[in-house]
Amino acid sequence: MTDTDHATRPGGRTARVRSDVLAAVEAELAEHGYDALTIDAVATRSGVHRTTVYRRWKSVAGLLVDLLEAGSDDSWQPPDTGSLEGDLIALNREVHAALTARPSITQAVIAASFRTPEAADALTTFWQDRYARSALVVTRAVARGEIPAGTDARQLLLTATAPLYHQLVLLRRPLPRSAADRFARIAAASVG
Amino acid sequence: MTDTDHATRPGGRTARVRSDVLAAVEAELAEHGYDALTIDAVATRSGVHRTTVYRRWKSVAGLLVDLLEAGSDDSWQPPDTGSLEGDLIALNREVHAALTARPSITQAVIAASFRTPEAADALTTFWQDRYARSALVVTRAVARGEIPAGTDARQLLLTATAPLYHQLVLLRRPLPRSAADRFARIAAASVG
Repeated sequence: MTDTDHATRPGGRTARVRSDVLAAVEAELAEHGYDALTIDAVATRSGVHRTTVYRRWKSVAGLLVDLLEAGSDDSWQPPDTGSLEGDLIALNREVHAALTARPSITQAVIAASFRTPEAADALTTFWQDRYARSALVVTRAVARGEIPAGTDARQLLLTATAPLYHQLVLLRRPLPRSAADRFARIAAASVG
Repeated sequence: MTDTDHATRPGGRTARVRSDVLAAVEAELAEHGYDALTIDAVATRSGVHRTTVYRRWKSVAGLLVDLLEAGSDDSWQPPDTGSLEGDLIALNREVHAALTARPSITQAVIAASFRTPEAADALTTFWQDRYARSALVVTRAVARGEIPAGTDARQLLLTATAPLYHQLVLLRRPLPRSAADRFARIAAASVG
């Protein structure tokens, strides 16, 4: 395979380097966990030169943030199930899956956010975007006549999702998926 | 003042060393923040020899955890206001105050919990105890006939408090105290 080949493929060499590096980050996380994650280990595993990795991603936090962004489809929208309760349950199942995955990229980025300000900035930006998009759940419920116009979307989404983050991230306790469903139902019942 | 004086005072020298050191931790946090907190700075400010500080507290995390424990009265119980909603509002105001204090010891210990396992262990133990004691809010409401026996205390307390932690700690966004009250009302209305 030559450089010409790469130039004709979608994304080409740059995209391939990115996918190789991010695959290495995920594999390192799975095998050794966040605390052992280093740029050198990622470079070695991916076969990408370490100076390339340092130049493009700058830090472990940079790698994690890019992995988080790569994993979320840019066209992401909250699931449309036909009811507010159904939509919130589907949303909470996504959050639950992300926080209980082994390895959990979200958990790793959260840990990184308490070590470097750039990871904290990237994470808050990511979540701002996700919560803003998730407000569509409320817009749709209002359009269906399920809940009154002017319902506070942020408050509703926090009521549904916050218990999952608190229990699984800060309290560091298990939480079954059925509990994630219950918190979605409590949130849905709190409006309308 | 002589050692004899100390020996006759409640707690004596050991208690005084502890209060001097913890006061220094709080002052260092207020002036320089968590990231700049070091045992050496605490030793210098408190006038306690650094080897004493290292021997007794071992790490920055150890200092923070002791500060957290010293700040919580051992006889802490959730406020008794006469109603479930009132109790949850009072509880949420305590959480809100702890998370928005400047400096916030709770926020500093949370940050430390993502850096050292001992801080994580101490924090989860502390919270387990606090949430267990807070279940008294539910016991009292059941006794008053406000809510059915068998109400899930953990779920109720998470519904009330989790949005405050999520918004103020992980999402790193402001949250007015009035919103803390609203989440307490949502939780109270979710049972009974």
